[in-house]
Amino acid sequence: MELEPAMSPDPANTGWGPTVWTFLSKVGSDSPLVQCITNFVTMDLVANTLLAAGASPAMLHSLEEIPDFTPQANALCINVGTLSPDWIPSMNAAAELASKLGKPWVLDPVAAGASGFRMKACLELVGLKPSVIRGNGSEIIALSKASVGNTKGVDSSHESMDAVEAAKSLAHTSGCIVAVSGAVDIITDGEQVIGVYNGVSMLQKITGTGCSVTALIAAFVAVDPSHALEATASALSVFGIAAEKGMDLAKGPASLRMHLIDSLYGLDQDAVQTCVNISSL
Amino acid sequence: MELEPAMSPDPANTGWGPTVWTFLSKVGSDSPLVQCITNFVTMDLVANTLLAAGASPAMLHSLEEIPDFTPQANALCINVGTLSPDWIPSMNAAAELASKLGKPWVLDPVAAGASGFRMKACLELVGLKPSVIRGNGSEIIALSKASVGNTKGVDSSHESMDAVEAAKSLAHTSGCIVAVSGAVDIITDGEQVIGVYNGVSMLQKITGTGCSVTALIAAFVAVDPSHALEATASALSVFGIAAEKGMDLAKGPASLRMHLIDSLYGLDQDAVQTCVNISSL
Amino acid sequence: MELEPAMSPDPANTGWGPTVWTFLSKVGSDSPLVQCITNFVTMDLVANTLLAAGASPAMLHSLEEIPDFTPQANALCINVGTLSPDWIPSMNAAAELASKLGKPWVLDPVAAGASGFRMKACLELVGLKPSVIRGNGSEIIALSKASVGNTKGVDSSHESMDAVEAAKSLAHTSGCIVAVSGAVDIITDGEQVIGVYNGVSMLQKITGTGCSVTALIAAFVAVDPSHALEATASALSVFGIAAEKGMDLAKGPASLRMHLIDSLYGLDQDAVQTCVNISSL
Repeated sequence: MELEPAMSPDPANTGWGPTVWTFLSKVGSDSPLVQCITNFVTMDLVANTLLAAGASPAMLHSLEEIPDFTPQANALCINVGTLSPDWIPSMNAAAELASKLGKPWVLDPVAAGASGFRMKACLELVGLKPSVIRGNGSEIIALSKASVGNTKGVDSSHESMDAVEAAKSLAHTSGCIVAVSGAVDIITDGEQVIGVYNGVSMLQKITGTGCSVTALIAAFVAVDPSHALEATASALSVFGIAAEKGMDLAKGPASLRMHLIDSLYGLDQDAVQTCVNISSL
Repeated sequence: MELEPAMSPDPANTGWGPTVWTFLSKVGSDSPLVQCITNFVTMDLVANTLLAAGASPAMLHSLEEIPDFTPQANALCINVGTLSPDWIPSMNAAAELASKLGKPWVLDPVAAGASGFRMKACLELVGLKPSVIRGNGSEIIALSKASVGNTKGVDSSHESMDAVEAAKSLAHTSGCIVAVSGAVDIITDGEQVIGVYNGVSMLQKITGTGCSVTALIAAFVAVDPSHALEATASALSVFGIAAEKGMDLAKGPASLRMHLIDSLYGLDQDAVQTCVNISSL
Repeated sequence: MELEPAMSPDPANTGWGPTVWTFLSKVGSDSPLVQCITNFVTMDLVANTLLAAGASPAMLHSLEEIPDFTPQANALCINVGTLSPDWIPSMNAAAELASKLGKPWVLDPVAAGASGFRMKACLELVGLKPSVIRGNGSEIIALSKASVGNTKGVDSSHESMDAVEAAKSLAHTSGCIVAVSGAVDIITDGEQVIGVYNGVSMLQKITGTGCSVTALIAAFVAVDPSHALEATASALSVFGIAAEKGMDLAKGPASLRMHLIDSLYGLDQDAVQTCVNISSL
């Protein structure tokens, strides 16, 4: 049942350690304000993930507040998990304003292929120029093809390696960084493809780990918006390392969830640099 | 403070072990997709409960998505915990569609007696032919009498044994399986009455354990819709066993919540068959 | 990073032990029904906090239910964390009805200064005569000045000691008890100022601890509405003590969150009376 990464380059050789640590430590020192317009299921875990990493979460989604608040935020995270029509204007307004102000924003197209309604909303958001789109294989494939159906809720029924072509295609057409979570996380700008080998398979048994890593990407991009590819890979690696360390203590998905957040809070330079496992594909 | 079950038949004699294990293992192998239209408070625990048991949760509640998505689901769970008028059309539409497509659906009439508004919505849902209704004693009594008031929020102020008659009456009039959670869980089709003796009293101190077991019932019914009575008893037993095992490690309600989910994830055939405690009443 | 309280009077000398214990034990024996109209992020933790303390939470927010349900509640807690326009009529109606019926109600003006929309809603609620307002320093300062902007989401960028004057001013103009959470919690009726020295700084790294202590204040005021100042100080002390005890076992914010709730559930007279750390300022 535990699908461990198919290949595992030697962490010592990847050379990403200092980059990843620089991002994490900058999140801790800058404490970027991340506005999240996100789903009801995982708001709590998302907020706690951001807090544990040193960022400052703000779960504000009312259309009325966007003109006052979004300009104060350092990044925006939009997640369509429990989408309803009344939230779409806020999502679009916040995304537009962030883009206009040159602020990074990140899209999590949860279950993009679950309905035509959801796909339409996601495609509209993709058109508003997110810095990064992160999903699982099914979501990125559905989004890249704008196809509905044949999804299994928010679970991924496609291994992330199969989604590389879809991710590259979506990155090309959208101009975004695209990340695909899976046994190996894939990050691409349409040309370059990076693999992140950190993480554990039990994350799939905890709701909201995808949403949380998307918000973490927003925090990482916030502190260095001109390096969104590196920020995205670094956030995925950090979250994966926290999961690996949490897994040492976990007895199941609920204790993993707890230990993951504790580990994320406690990560130091040595732990990060020793464990980073990223390489070009 | 700990109200342990009033009577406790010998697990070895109940003969339910293989049935319960068959349901749980089938949930693990089929991974049924369970659409949940549920309350804001407990979405997270409900989703994690389904994941731990091997099912695939999907928290989708928009009216716009139901025609596309509900046909893909293997079961539907409707929970009125944080009911508001704008959610009622979705609940009704999803319930109607599920019934029309022959898919099982399960109703959790949270705090049914708290207001006339809530009672009306619950009665309307009962009319849409759920496979199973699960509540606490107060909720089932209120629903069976269509009476409002004298409720204490979502807590039960009636012991489940007192609710047997109400459950039988509701099962008769609705044609559903009715389950009443309590010190002993009661399940009835209006004729047969089954008692589940698994569980611990501290579950009452954790919000969302009722909601979670309702969703688990939906997953169990999904894998064998023609045996809803057995599926319901099995789900209640499995959740109770996970709580019992969690209780061995728990130091209070928050750690019980964590250990319960870990235990549910780790339950094996031996653990289930040894601990199942179900008997006819 | 850990900002421990600036000063720490000797617990043995404060004389508050019996008062605090009386409140907590009365919550346990009366199990007051606390209606919460609160935010999506922290409903789960708020409900579990109330349950652990022995109160009975009810997360009901529909306008349609207020006439039937609010009269049954012993106290009301309104929290504007994820405010949207459609929730404001419910908040106002419940607050008005509670005031009219002489029931205590407590306001948590989360991120009051984040937008003009939010500030307007908060000021309107303040006009509906809450018994207690609890926020962090930034929130209370913003509310006392009715000023928007320069906030950092829901985090406090003002130490609570700086907020004493703002709290006194708000207490004067509103006629409420005002509490400011921080390294030292401040409670004032506009004249008397009390400091609560219990708590740990890591609480700031857990979303919803502020919301939870506000709900706990509602439960404490519910059991003795004529002593709202003492109830508020007692609730803040109890929550802080639970955090201190939780901190002995915690390895980070997620395990602290768990141990805090377990500790709150398990607090006995000796633990409370030994640890209470309250004094006049």
